[in-house]
Amino acid sequence: MIETLVVLAPGLLGASVARAARARGVAERIVIWARRPEVRVALVDQPWCDEVADSPEAAVAEAGMVVVASPVTRIPALVQRIAQDLPEHAIVTDVGSVKAEICREARTSLADTAATFVGSHPMAGSALTGWENADPELFEGRTCFVTPQEADQTTAVETVVRFWRDLGSEVVTTTADQHDEIVAHISHLPQIVATNLGTLLGARPSQWSHLAGNGLKDTTRIAASDATMWIEILEQNRDEILRALKGFEDDLHHFRSALSNRDWTELRARLERGKSWRDGLRP
Amino acid sequence: MIETLVVLAPGLLGASVARAARARGVAERIVIWARRPEVRVALVDQPWCDEVADSPEAAVAEAGMVVVASPVTRIPALVQRIAQDLPEHAIVTDVGSVKAEICREARTSLADTAATFVGSHPMAGSALTGWENADPELFEGRTCFVTPQEADQTTAVETVVRFWRDLGSEVVTTTADQHDEIVAHISHLPQIVATNLGTLLGARPSQWSHLAGNGLKDTTRIAASDATMWIEILEQNRDEILRALKGFEDDLHHFRSALSNRDWTELRARLERGKSWRDGLRP
Repeated sequence: MIETLVVLAPGLLGASVARAARARGVAERIVIWARRPEVRVALVDQPWCDEVADSPEAAVAEAGMVVVASPVTRIPALVQRIAQDLPEHAIVTDVGSVKAEICREARTSLADTAATFVGSHPMAGSALTGWENADPELFEGRTCFVTPQEADQTTAVETVVRFWRDLGSEVVTTTADQHDEIVAHISHLPQIVATNLGTLLGARPSQWSHLAGNGLKDTTRIAASDATMWIEILEQNRDEILRALKGFEDDLHHFRSALSNRDWTELRARLERGKSWRDGLRP
Repeated sequence: MIETLVVLAPGLLGASVARAARARGVAERIVIWARRPEVRVALVDQPWCDEVADSPEAAVAEAGMVVVASPVTRIPALVQRIAQDLPEHAIVTDVGSVKAEICREARTSLADTAATFVGSHPMAGSALTGWENADPELFEGRTCFVTPQEADQTTAVETVVRFWRDLGSEVVTTTADQHDEIVAHISHLPQIVATNLGTLLGARPSQWSHLAGNGLKDTTRIAASDATMWIEILEQNRDEILRALKGFEDDLHHFRSALSNRDWTELRARLERGKSWRDGLRP
Protein backbone atom coordinates (compact mmCIF):
# COMPACT_ATOMS: atom_id res chain seq x y z
CA MET A 1 0.00 0.00 0.00
CA ILE A 2 1.19 3.51 -0.82
CA GLU A 3 1.44 5.66 2.27
CA THR A 4 0.92 9.04 0.61
CA LEU A 5 -0.42 9.30 -2.94
CA VAL A 6 -0.26 12.78 -4.47
CA VAL A 7 -2.30 13.76 -7.51
CA LEU A 8 -1.34 17.02 -9.18
CA ALA A 9 -3.75 18.90 -11.46
CA PRO A 10 -6.65 16.45 -11.44
CA GLY A 11 -9.01 16.53 -14.40
CA LEU A 12 -11.10 13.52 -15.35
CA LEU A 13 -8.08 11.19 -15.31
CA GLY A 14 -6.35 12.47 -12.19
CA ALA A 15 -9.52 12.55 -10.11
CA SER A 16 -10.42 9.07 -11.37
CA VAL A 17 -6.99 7.88 -10.18
CA ALA A 18 -7.71 9.31 -6.73
CA ARG A 19 -11.24 7.89 -6.59
CA ALA A 20 -10.10 4.47 -7.80
CA ALA A 21 -7.23 4.49 -5.28
CA ARG A 22 -9.66 5.29 -2.46
CA ALA A 23 -12.27 2.74 -3.59
CA ARG A 24 -9.68 -0.02 -3.85
CA GLY A 25 -7.64 0.87 -0.77
CA VAL A 26 -4.47 1.47 -2.77
CA ALA A 27 -3.28 4.47 -0.74
CA GLU A 28 -3.49 5.35 2.91
CA ARG A 29 -3.57 9.08 2.38
CA ILE A 30 -4.42 11.08 -0.74
CA VAL A 31 -3.14 14.63 -1.22
CA ILE A 32 -4.30 16.79 -4.09
CA TRP A 33 -3.15 20.04 -5.62
CA ALA A 34 -5.24 21.77 -8.28
CA ARG A 35 -4.15 24.84 -10.25
CA ARG A 36 -7.37 26.81 -9.79
CA PRO A 37 -8.14 28.05 -6.24
CA GLU A 38 -11.90 27.45 -6.64
CA VAL A 39 -11.22 23.80 -7.49
CA ARG A 40 -9.01 23.47 -4.41
CA VAL A 41 -11.90 24.79 -2.29
CA ALA A 42 -14.34 22.34 -3.84
CA LEU A 43 -11.99 19.38 -3.40
CA VAL A 44 -11.76 19.77 0.37
CA ASP A 45 -15.16 18.11 0.71
CA GLN A 46 -14.41 15.12 -1.51
CA PRO A 47 -14.15 11.80 0.36
CA TRP A 48 -11.25 10.75 -1.90
CA CYS A 49 -9.20 13.77 -0.91
CA ASP A 50 -7.56 13.80 2.56
CA GLU A 51 -5.65 17.01 2.08
CA VAL A 52 -5.64 19.84 -0.43
CA ALA A 53 -2.27 21.56 -0.81
CA ASP A 54 -1.79 25.18 -1.82
CA SER A 55 1.15 24.45 -4.11
CA PRO A 56 2.60 21.42 -5.92
CA GLU A 57 5.76 21.77 -3.85
CA ALA A 58 3.78 21.54 -0.59
CA ALA A 59 1.66 18.70 -1.94
CA VAL A 60 4.61 16.38 -2.58
CA ALA A 61 6.40 16.95 0.74
CA GLU A 62 5.56 13.46 2.04
CA ALA A 63 4.81 11.74 -1.27
CA GLY A 64 5.43 8.03 -1.82
CA MET A 65 3.97 8.30 -5.32
CA VAL A 66 3.08 11.38 -7.37
CA VAL A 67 0.72 11.24 -10.36
CA VAL A 68 1.06 14.32 -12.59
CA ALA A 69 -2.33 14.54 -14.30
CA SER A 70 -2.13 17.88 -16.12
CA PRO A 71 -2.44 18.26 -19.92
CA VAL A 72 0.63 16.77 -21.65
CA THR A 73 2.35 20.06 -22.45
CA ARG A 74 2.40 21.10 -18.78
CA ILE A 75 3.71 17.83 -17.35
CA PRO A 76 7.46 18.56 -17.75
CA ALA A 77 7.18 21.97 -16.07
CA LEU A 78 5.25 20.48 -13.13
CA VAL A 79 7.84 17.75 -12.64
CA GLN A 80 10.58 20.37 -12.74
CA ARG A 81 8.73 22.47 -10.19
CA ILE A 82 8.42 19.67 -7.60
CA ALA A 83 11.87 18.13 -8.20
CA GLN A 84 13.67 19.66 -5.22
CA ASP A 85 10.79 19.05 -2.80
CA LEU A 86 10.32 15.33 -3.44
CA PRO A 87 11.20 13.00 -0.56
CA GLU A 88 13.99 10.50 -1.23
CA HIS A 89 12.81 7.45 -3.19
CA ALA A 90 9.55 9.12 -4.22
CA ILE A 91 8.23 7.77 -7.51
CA VAL A 92 6.74 10.19 -10.03
CA THR A 93 4.49 9.11 -12.89
CA ASP A 94 1.98 10.81 -15.20
CA VAL A 95 -1.06 10.09 -17.39
CA GLY A 96 0.15 11.75 -20.62
CA SER A 97 -0.86 10.19 -23.93
CA VAL A 98 2.57 10.79 -25.49
CA LYS A 99 5.68 9.57 -23.71
CA ALA A 100 9.13 10.09 -25.29
CA GLU A 101 9.42 13.86 -24.82
CA ILE A 102 7.79 13.88 -21.36
CA CYS A 103 10.01 11.05 -20.10
CA ARG A 104 13.16 12.71 -21.43
CA GLU A 105 12.39 16.07 -19.81
CA ALA A 106 11.13 14.59 -16.53
CA ARG A 107 14.24 12.45 -16.15
CA THR A 108 16.44 15.49 -16.71
CA SER A 109 14.53 17.38 -14.00
CA LEU A 110 14.98 14.53 -11.51
CA ALA A 111 18.59 13.69 -12.49
CA ASP A 112 20.17 15.16 -9.36
CA THR A 113 17.49 13.88 -6.96
CA ALA A 114 16.84 10.49 -5.37
CA ALA A 115 13.36 10.35 -6.91
CA THR A 116 12.50 8.35 -10.03
CA PHE A 117 10.23 9.17 -12.98
CA VAL A 118 8.47 6.26 -14.71
CA GLY A 119 6.03 7.35 -17.42
CA SER A 120 2.46 6.01 -17.65
CA HIS A 121 -0.35 6.29 -20.17
CA PRO A 122 -3.68 4.84 -19.09
CA MET A 123 -5.75 4.37 -22.29
CA ALA A 124 -8.97 5.44 -20.65
CA GLY A 125 -11.22 8.39 -21.13
CA SER A 126 -14.74 9.58 -21.50
CA ALA A 127 -16.68 12.06 -23.56
CA LEU A 128 -16.88 14.02 -20.30
CA THR A 129 -14.02 16.01 -18.83
CA GLY A 130 -13.20 17.57 -15.46
CA TRP A 131 -12.74 16.14 -11.97
CA GLU A 132 -16.52 16.31 -11.36
CA ASN A 133 -16.98 13.46 -13.85
CA ALA A 134 -14.30 11.22 -12.35
CA ASP A 135 -15.13 7.52 -12.27
CA PRO A 136 -13.49 5.05 -9.88
CA GLU A 137 -14.03 2.29 -12.48
CA LEU A 138 -12.45 4.25 -15.36
CA PHE A 139 -9.34 2.06 -15.53
CA GLU A 140 -11.09 -1.29 -15.07
CA GLY A 141 -9.97 -3.66 -17.83
CA ARG A 142 -8.32 -0.86 -19.84
CA THR A 143 -4.78 -0.89 -21.17
CA CYS A 144 -2.23 1.19 -19.29
CA PHE A 145 1.23 1.66 -20.78
CA VAL A 146 4.16 1.97 -18.38
CA THR A 147 7.34 3.17 -20.11
CA PRO A 148 10.51 2.56 -18.07
CA GLN A 149 14.06 3.13 -19.26
CA GLU A 150 16.67 0.40 -19.03
CA ALA A 151 18.53 2.33 -16.34
CA ASP A 152 15.46 2.52 -14.08
CA GLN A 153 15.38 0.93 -10.67
CA THR A 154 13.41 -2.27 -10.95
CA THR A 155 11.50 -1.56 -7.74
CA ALA A 156 10.25 1.83 -8.97
CA VAL A 157 8.98 0.24 -12.20
CA GLU A 158 7.38 -2.60 -10.28
CA THR A 159 5.65 -0.14 -7.97
CA VAL A 160 4.14 1.80 -10.88
CA VAL A 161 3.06 -1.40 -12.64
CA ARG A 162 1.43 -2.69 -9.45
CA PHE A 163 -0.26 0.69 -8.88
CA TRP A 164 -2.08 0.61 -12.24
CA ARG A 165 -2.95 -3.08 -11.83
CA ASP A 166 -4.42 -2.27 -8.44
CA LEU A 167 -6.60 0.39 -10.13
CA GLY A 168 -7.91 -2.30 -12.51
CA SER A 169 -5.75 -1.70 -15.61
CA GLU A 170 -4.05 -4.26 -17.81
CA VAL A 171 -0.48 -3.03 -17.83
CA VAL A 172 1.82 -3.15 -20.86
CA THR A 173 5.45 -2.11 -20.37
CA THR A 174 7.37 -0.79 -23.35
CA THR A 175 9.93 1.91 -24.14
CA ALA A 176 8.67 5.46 -24.49
CA ASP A 177 9.67 5.55 -28.18
CA GLN A 178 7.89 2.30 -28.97
CA HIS A 179 4.83 3.55 -27.06
CA ASP A 180 4.72 6.67 -29.21
CA GLU A 181 4.98 4.64 -32.43
CA ILE A 182 2.16 2.34 -31.30
CA VAL A 183 -0.26 5.09 -30.25
CA ALA A 184 0.52 7.05 -33.43
CA HIS A 185 -1.01 4.06 -35.25
CA ILE A 186 -3.80 2.87 -32.94
CA SER A 187 -4.97 6.21 -31.57
CA HIS A 188 -3.59 9.30 -33.32
CA LEU A 189 -4.02 8.08 -36.90
CA PRO A 190 -7.71 7.11 -36.36
CA GLN A 191 -8.30 10.56 -34.84
CA ILE A 192 -6.79 12.33 -37.86
CA VAL A 193 -8.77 10.13 -40.25
CA ALA A 194 -12.02 10.88 -38.41
CA THR A 195 -11.22 14.61 -38.33
CA ASN A 196 -10.52 14.66 -42.06
CA LEU A 197 -13.72 12.79 -42.90
CA GLY A 198 -15.43 15.47 -40.82
CA THR A 199 -13.81 18.41 -42.61
CA LEU A 200 -14.49 16.82 -46.02
CA LEU A 201 -18.18 16.26 -45.25
CA GLY A 202 -18.43 19.62 -43.53
CA ALA A 203 -17.53 21.18 -46.89
CA ARG A 204 -20.41 19.40 -48.65
CA PRO A 205 -24.16 20.23 -48.41
CA SER A 206 -25.25 19.65 -44.82
CA GLN A 207 -28.27 17.58 -45.91
CA TRP A 208 -25.83 14.86 -47.08
CA SER A 209 -24.57 14.23 -43.57
CA HIS A 210 -28.08 14.00 -42.15
CA LEU A 211 -28.75 11.09 -44.50
CA ALA A 212 -25.86 9.13 -43.06
CA GLY A 213 -26.25 5.72 -41.49
CA ASN A 214 -24.48 4.27 -38.47
CA GLY A 215 -21.34 3.48 -40.49
CA LEU A 216 -20.41 7.13 -40.92
CA LYS A 217 -21.41 7.94 -37.35
CA ASP A 218 -19.15 5.26 -35.90
CA THR A 219 -16.27 6.06 -38.24
CA THR A 220 -16.28 9.73 -37.26
CA ARG A 221 -17.34 9.58 -33.60
CA ILE A 222 -13.91 10.64 -32.31
CA ALA A 223 -13.84 13.66 -34.62
CA ALA A 224 -15.83 15.31 -31.79
CA SER A 225 -12.78 15.16 -29.48
CA ASP A 226 -11.35 18.29 -27.92
CA ALA A 227 -9.18 20.26 -30.38
CA THR A 228 -6.85 21.68 -27.71
CA MET A 229 -5.98 18.23 -26.39
CA TRP A 230 -5.24 17.03 -29.92
CA ILE A 231 -3.04 19.98 -30.82
CA GLU A 232 -0.89 19.03 -27.82
CA ILE A 233 -0.72 15.40 -28.91
CA LEU A 234 0.13 16.37 -32.50
CA GLU A 235 2.90 18.60 -31.17
CA GLN A 236 4.35 16.00 -28.82
CA ASN A 237 4.18 13.02 -31.16
CA ARG A 238 4.73 14.83 -34.45
CA ASP A 239 7.45 12.58 -35.94
CA GLU A 240 5.67 9.26 -35.31
CA ILE A 241 2.35 10.68 -36.50
CA LEU A 242 3.93 11.99 -39.72
CA ARG A 243 5.30 8.50 -40.40
CA ALA A 244 2.00 6.71 -39.65
CA LEU A 245 0.04 9.22 -41.72
CA LYS A 246 2.39 8.85 -44.68
CA GLY A 247 1.93 5.06 -44.50
CA PHE A 248 -1.84 5.47 -44.49
CA GLU A 249 -1.79 7.89 -47.43
CA ASP A 250 0.32 5.40 -49.41
CA ASP A 251 -2.15 2.59 -48.68
CA LEU A 252 -5.07 4.78 -49.68
CA HIS A 253 -3.30 5.79 -52.86
CA HIS A 254 -2.71 2.14 -53.79
CA PHE A 255 -6.36 1.39 -53.15
CA ARG A 256 -7.41 4.24 -55.43
CA SER A 257 -4.99 3.13 -58.16
CA ALA A 258 -6.40 -0.40 -57.99
CA LEU A 259 -9.94 1.00 -58.32
CA SER A 260 -8.87 3.26 -61.16
CA ASN A 261 -7.33 0.22 -62.94
CA ARG A 262 -10.35 -1.98 -62.16
CA ASP A 263 -8.01 -4.41 -60.38
CA TRP A 264 -10.80 -6.28 -58.59
CA THR A 265 -8.45 -9.05 -57.40
CA GLU A 266 -6.27 -6.54 -55.58
CA LEU A 267 -9.30 -4.67 -54.19
CA ARG A 268 -10.89 -7.88 -52.94
CA ALA A 269 -7.61 -8.87 -51.27
CA ARG A 270 -7.50 -5.49 -49.51
CA LEU A 271 -11.16 -5.64 -48.42
CA GLU A 272 -10.58 -9.15 -47.10
CA ARG A 273 -7.39 -8.21 -45.25
CA GLY A 274 -9.19 -5.28 -43.62
CA LYS A 275 -12.12 -7.51 -42.65
CA SER A 276 -9.88 -10.24 -41.32
CA TRP A 277 -7.99 -7.74 -39.15
CA ARG A 278 -11.25 -6.23 -37.82
CA ASP A 279 -12.85 -9.63 -37.18
CA GLY A 280 -9.79 -10.52 -35.11
CA LEU A 281 -10.04 -7.44 -32.88
CA ARG A 282 -11.12 -8.10 -29.31
CA PRO A 283 -14.68 -6.87 -28.74
CA MET B 1 -52.89 -0.45 -50.38
CA ILE B 2 -50.96 -2.50 -52.91
CA GLU B 3 -52.97 -5.44 -54.17
CA THR B 4 -50.04 -7.73 -55.04
CA LEU B 5 -46.52 -7.01 -53.78
CA VAL B 6 -43.80 -9.15 -55.34
CA VAL B 7 -40.35 -9.50 -53.76
CA LEU B 8 -37.68 -11.08 -55.95
CA ALA B 9 -34.52 -12.64 -54.46
CA PRO B 10 -35.13 -11.80 -50.79
CA GLY B 11 -32.08 -11.60 -48.56
CA LEU B 12 -32.10 -9.57 -45.36
CA LEU B 13 -33.46 -6.47 -47.11
CA GLY B 14 -36.04 -8.12 -49.37
CA ALA B 15 -37.46 -10.32 -46.61
CA SER B 16 -37.57 -7.32 -44.27
CA VAL B 17 -39.58 -5.47 -46.93
CA ALA B 18 -42.06 -8.36 -47.03
CA ARG B 19 -42.26 -8.67 -43.25
CA ALA B 20 -42.67 -4.90 -42.77
CA ALA B 21 -45.35 -4.82 -45.50
CA ARG B 22 -47.24 -7.63 -43.75
CA ALA B 23 -46.85 -6.13 -40.27
CA ARG B 24 -48.07 -2.72 -41.45
CA GLY B 25 -50.81 -3.92 -43.79
CA VAL B 26 -49.19 -2.30 -46.82
CA ALA B 27 -50.03 -5.10 -49.27
CA GLU B 28 -52.99 -7.43 -49.60
CA ARG B 29 -51.01 -10.31 -51.07
CA ILE B 30 -47.24 -10.96 -50.99
CA VAL B 31 -45.61 -13.15 -53.64
CA ILE B 32 -41.97 -14.20 -53.38
CA TRP B 33 -39.48 -15.76 -55.74
CA ALA B 34 -36.07 -16.92 -54.47
CA ARG B 35 -33.23 -18.16 -56.68
CA ARG B 36 -32.40 -21.25 -54.60
CA PRO B 37 -35.03 -24.04 -54.58
CA GLU B 38 -34.40 -24.89 -50.91
CA VAL B 39 -35.15 -21.27 -49.94
CA ARG B 40 -38.41 -21.43 -51.94
CA VAL B 41 -39.39 -24.53 -49.98
CA ALA B 42 -38.60 -22.86 -46.66
CA LEU B 43 -40.49 -19.68 -47.57
CA VAL B 44 -43.80 -21.49 -48.11
CA ASP B 45 -44.28 -21.64 -44.34
CA GLN B 46 -43.57 -17.96 -43.65
CA PRO B 47 -46.60 -15.92 -42.54
CA TRP B 48 -45.37 -12.97 -44.65
CA CYS B 49 -45.36 -15.02 -47.82
CA ASP B 50 -48.73 -15.83 -49.46
CA GLU B 51 -47.31 -17.48 -52.52
CA VAL B 52 -43.91 -18.73 -53.63
CA ALA B 53 -43.36 -18.65 -57.39
CA ASP B 54 -41.08 -20.98 -59.32
CA SER B 55 -39.71 -18.27 -61.56
CA PRO B 56 -39.44 -14.47 -61.50
CA GLU B 57 -41.65 -14.35 -64.62
CA ALA B 58 -44.41 -16.30 -62.87
CA ALA B 59 -44.02 -14.27 -59.68
CA VAL B 60 -44.76 -10.93 -61.36
CA ALA B 61 -47.80 -12.05 -63.37
CA GLU B 62 -50.22 -10.07 -61.16
CA ALA B 63 -47.81 -7.60 -59.61
CA GLY B 64 -48.85 -4.11 -58.60
CA MET B 65 -45.38 -3.45 -57.23
CA VAL B 66 -42.17 -5.47 -57.65
CA VAL B 67 -39.18 -5.06 -55.33
CA VAL B 68 -35.99 -6.51 -56.82
CA ALA B 69 -33.86 -7.33 -53.79
CA SER B 70 -30.93 -9.22 -55.30
CA PRO B 71 -27.28 -8.09 -54.99
CA VAL B 72 -26.71 -4.93 -57.08
CA THR B 73 -24.92 -6.59 -59.99
CA ARG B 74 -27.85 -8.93 -60.63
CA ILE B 75 -30.64 -6.35 -60.52
CA PRO B 76 -30.52 -5.26 -64.20
CA ALA B 77 -30.66 -8.86 -65.46
CA LEU B 78 -33.65 -9.64 -63.22
CA VAL B 79 -35.54 -6.56 -64.43
CA GLN B 80 -34.78 -7.56 -68.01
CA ARG B 81 -36.01 -11.08 -67.34
CA ILE B 82 -39.42 -10.01 -65.99
CA ALA B 83 -39.98 -7.10 -68.42
CA GLN B 84 -42.32 -8.87 -70.83
CA ASP B 85 -44.36 -10.54 -68.06
CA LEU B 86 -45.20 -7.43 -66.05
CA PRO B 87 -48.84 -6.35 -65.97
CA GLU B 88 -49.60 -2.93 -67.44
CA HIS B 89 -48.86 -0.08 -64.98
CA ALA B 90 -46.83 -2.34 -62.70
CA ILE B 91 -44.18 -0.40 -60.78
CA VAL B 92 -40.74 -1.91 -60.34
CA THR B 93 -38.25 -0.76 -57.73
CA ASP B 94 -35.14 -2.20 -56.08
CA VAL B 95 -33.00 -1.91 -52.92
CA GLY B 96 -29.58 -1.45 -54.58
CA SER B 97 -27.05 0.79 -52.86
CA VAL B 98 -25.86 2.33 -56.15
CA LYS B 99 -28.39 3.83 -58.52
CA ALA B 100 -27.23 5.45 -61.80
CA GLU B 101 -26.22 2.29 -63.66
CA ILE B 102 -29.12 0.19 -62.37
CA CYS B 103 -31.69 2.87 -63.22
CA ARG B 104 -30.27 3.34 -66.73
CA GLU B 105 -30.32 -0.38 -67.52
CA ALA B 106 -33.70 -1.06 -65.90
CA ARG B 107 -35.33 1.78 -67.83
CA THR B 108 -33.93 0.43 -71.08
CA SER B 109 -35.38 -3.01 -70.28
CA LEU B 110 -38.84 -1.55 -69.59
CA ALA B 111 -38.76 1.00 -72.44
CA ASP B 112 -41.26 -0.85 -74.64
CA THR B 113 -43.58 -1.88 -71.78
CA ALA B 114 -46.27 -0.03 -69.81
CA ALA B 115 -44.44 -0.69 -66.56
CA THR B 116 -42.26 1.90 -64.78
CA PHE B 117 -38.95 1.53 -62.95
CA VAL B 118 -38.27 3.92 -60.05
CA GLY B 119 -35.02 3.19 -58.17
CA SER B 120 -34.86 2.94 -54.38
CA HIS B 121 -32.08 2.62 -51.84
CA PRO B 122 -33.16 2.02 -48.27
CA MET B 123 -30.16 2.91 -46.05
CA ALA B 124 -30.78 0.07 -43.65
CA GLY B 125 -28.87 -3.03 -42.85
CA SER B 126 -27.55 -5.24 -40.14
CA ALA B 127 -24.41 -7.18 -39.34
CA LEU B 128 -26.58 -10.22 -40.12
CA THR B 129 -27.53 -11.33 -43.62
CA GLY B 130 -30.10 -13.65 -45.16
CA TRP B 131 -33.89 -13.76 -45.13
CA GLU B 132 -33.86 -15.67 -41.81
CA ASN B 133 -32.66 -12.49 -40.08
CA ALA B 134 -35.28 -10.21 -41.62
CA ASP B 135 -36.68 -7.55 -39.31
CA PRO B 136 -40.08 -5.88 -39.86
CA GLU B 137 -38.71 -2.77 -38.09
CA LEU B 138 -35.56 -2.53 -40.23
CA PHE B 139 -36.70 0.58 -42.11
CA GLU B 140 -38.18 2.41 -39.14
CA GLY B 141 -36.76 5.94 -39.02
CA ARG B 142 -34.07 5.16 -41.62
CA THR B 143 -33.37 7.15 -44.75
CA CYS B 144 -34.64 5.69 -48.03
CA PHE B 145 -33.56 7.30 -51.30
CA VAL B 146 -36.03 7.23 -54.19
CA THR B 147 -34.41 8.23 -57.49
CA PRO B 148 -36.96 9.15 -60.18
CA GLN B 149 -36.13 10.60 -63.59
CA GLU B 150 -37.74 13.79 -64.81
CA ALA B 151 -39.70 11.85 -67.43
CA ASP B 152 -41.24 9.52 -64.85
CA GLN B 153 -44.97 9.38 -64.26
CA THR B 154 -45.72 11.32 -61.10
CA THR B 155 -48.09 8.63 -59.81
CA ALA B 156 -45.47 5.87 -60.05
CA VAL B 157 -42.98 7.99 -58.11
CA GLU B 158 -45.63 8.89 -55.54
CA THR B 159 -46.53 5.23 -55.09
CA VAL B 160 -42.92 4.24 -54.43
CA VAL B 161 -42.43 7.15 -52.01
CA ARG B 162 -45.61 6.22 -50.14
CA PHE B 163 -44.55 2.56 -50.06
CA TRP B 164 -41.28 3.29 -48.22
CA ARG B 165 -42.96 5.78 -45.91
CA ASP B 166 -45.53 3.12 -45.05
CA LEU B 167 -42.65 0.79 -44.13
CA GLY B 168 -41.36 3.45 -41.70
CA SER B 169 -38.63 5.11 -43.78
CA GLU B 170 -37.85 8.80 -44.14
CA VAL B 171 -37.86 9.23 -47.91
CA VAL B 172 -35.47 11.50 -49.80
CA THR B 173 -36.00 11.91 -53.54
CA THR B 174 -33.04 12.82 -55.71
CA THR B 175 -31.62 11.96 -59.13
CA ALA B 176 -29.73 8.69 -59.47
CA ASP B 177 -26.48 10.55 -60.25
CA GLN B 178 -26.81 12.83 -57.24
CA HIS B 179 -27.60 9.79 -55.07
CA ASP B 180 -24.40 8.09 -56.19
CA GLU B 181 -22.33 11.18 -55.44
CA ILE B 182 -23.87 11.46 -51.96
CA VAL B 183 -23.40 7.81 -50.98
CA ALA B 184 -19.83 7.85 -52.35
CA HIS B 185 -19.16 10.44 -49.64
CA ILE B 186 -21.33 9.35 -46.72
CA SER B 187 -21.10 5.57 -47.11
CA HIS B 188 -18.48 4.34 -49.59
CA LEU B 189 -15.64 6.66 -48.53
CA PRO B 190 -15.99 5.77 -44.81
CA GLN B 191 -15.93 2.07 -45.79
CA ILE B 192 -12.69 2.49 -47.77
CA VAL B 193 -11.12 4.50 -44.95
CA ALA B 194 -12.03 1.83 -42.39
CA THR B 195 -10.74 -0.94 -44.68
CA ASN B 196 -7.43 0.87 -45.17
CA LEU B 197 -6.96 1.48 -41.46
CA GLY B 198 -7.55 -2.26 -41.10
CA THR B 199 -4.98 -3.27 -43.73
CA LEU B 200 -2.41 -0.83 -42.30
CA LEU B 201 -2.82 -2.14 -38.75
CA GLY B 202 -3.02 -5.72 -40.00
CA ALA B 203 0.52 -5.23 -41.33
CA ARG B 204 1.81 -4.17 -37.88
CA PRO B 205 2.45 -6.44 -34.84
CA SER B 206 -0.89 -7.90 -33.78
CA GLN B 207 -0.30 -6.93 -30.11
CA TRP B 208 -0.65 -3.28 -31.15
CA SER B 209 -4.26 -3.73 -32.16
CA HIS B 210 -5.15 -5.51 -28.96
CA LEU B 211 -4.07 -2.41 -27.04
CA ALA B 212 -6.56 -0.27 -28.92
CA GLY B 213 -9.30 1.68 -27.20
CA ASN B 214 -12.85 2.30 -28.33
CA GLY B 215 -11.77 5.04 -30.75
CA LEU B 216 -10.06 2.62 -33.10
CA LYS B 217 -12.83 0.06 -32.68
CA ASP B 218 -15.54 2.54 -33.67
CA THR B 219 -13.51 4.01 -36.51
CA THR B 220 -12.94 0.59 -38.08
CA ARG B 221 -16.18 -1.23 -37.21
CA ILE B 222 -17.41 -1.28 -40.83
CA ALA B 223 -14.10 -2.76 -42.05
CA ALA B 224 -15.76 -6.07 -41.07
CA SER B 225 -18.33 -5.71 -43.88
CA ASP B 226 -18.72 -8.35 -46.56
CA ALA B 227 -16.00 -8.06 -49.25
CA THR B 228 -18.18 -9.42 -52.08
CA MET B 229 -20.87 -6.80 -51.48
CA TRP B 230 -18.26 -4.05 -51.48
CA ILE B 231 -16.56 -5.21 -54.68
CA GLU B 232 -19.97 -4.83 -56.36
CA ILE B 233 -20.44 -1.35 -54.95
CA LEU B 234 -16.91 -0.29 -55.96
CA GLU B 235 -17.62 -1.57 -59.44
CA GLN B 236 -20.99 0.14 -59.80
CA ASN B 237 -20.02 3.49 -58.29
CA ARG B 238 -16.39 3.61 -59.40
CA ASP B 239 -16.32 7.14 -60.85
CA GLU B 240 -17.96 8.88 -57.88
CA ILE B 241 -15.86 6.91 -55.41
CA LEU B 242 -12.64 7.82 -57.25
CA ARG B 243 -13.60 11.49 -56.99
CA ALA B 244 -14.53 11.33 -53.29
CA LEU B 245 -11.37 9.36 -52.47
CA LYS B 246 -9.16 11.85 -54.32
CA GLY B 247 -10.76 14.69 -52.33
CA PHE B 248 -10.09 12.84 -49.07
CA GLU B 249 -6.47 12.12 -50.02
CA ASP B 250 -5.96 15.82 -50.79
CA ASP B 251 -7.38 16.83 -47.40
CA LEU B 252 -5.19 14.29 -45.63
CA HIS B 253 -2.15 15.51 -47.52
CA HIS B 254 -2.85 19.11 -46.49
CA PHE B 255 -3.22 18.00 -42.90
CA ARG B 256 0.13 16.22 -43.04
CA SER B 257 1.82 19.25 -44.64
CA ALA B 258 0.46 21.48 -41.89
CA LEU B 259 1.81 19.06 -39.26
CA SER B 260 5.14 18.84 -41.05
CA ASN B 261 5.33 22.68 -41.09
CA ARG B 262 4.17 22.97 -37.47
CA ASP B 263 1.26 25.12 -38.66
CA TRP B 264 -0.72 24.80 -35.42
CA THR B 265 -3.22 27.48 -36.44
CA GLU B 266 -4.18 25.54 -39.55
CA LEU B 267 -4.28 22.24 -37.65
CA ARG B 268 -6.46 23.70 -34.92
CA ALA B 269 -8.84 25.10 -37.56
CA ARG B 270 -9.10 21.65 -39.15
CA LEU B 271 -9.64 19.86 -35.82
CA GLU B 272 -12.32 22.39 -34.93
CA ARG B 273 -14.07 22.12 -38.31
CA GLY B 274 -14.12 18.32 -37.96
CA LYS B 275 -15.47 18.58 -34.42
CA SER B 276 -18.07 21.14 -35.37
CA TRP B 277 -19.31 18.93 -38.22
CA ARG B 278 -19.46 15.86 -35.96
CA ASP B 279 -21.17 17.72 -33.11
CA GLY B 280 -23.85 18.80 -35.60
CA LEU B 281 -24.62 15.26 -36.75
CA ARG B 282 -27.97 13.89 -35.64
CA PRO B 283 -27.52 11.23 -32.93
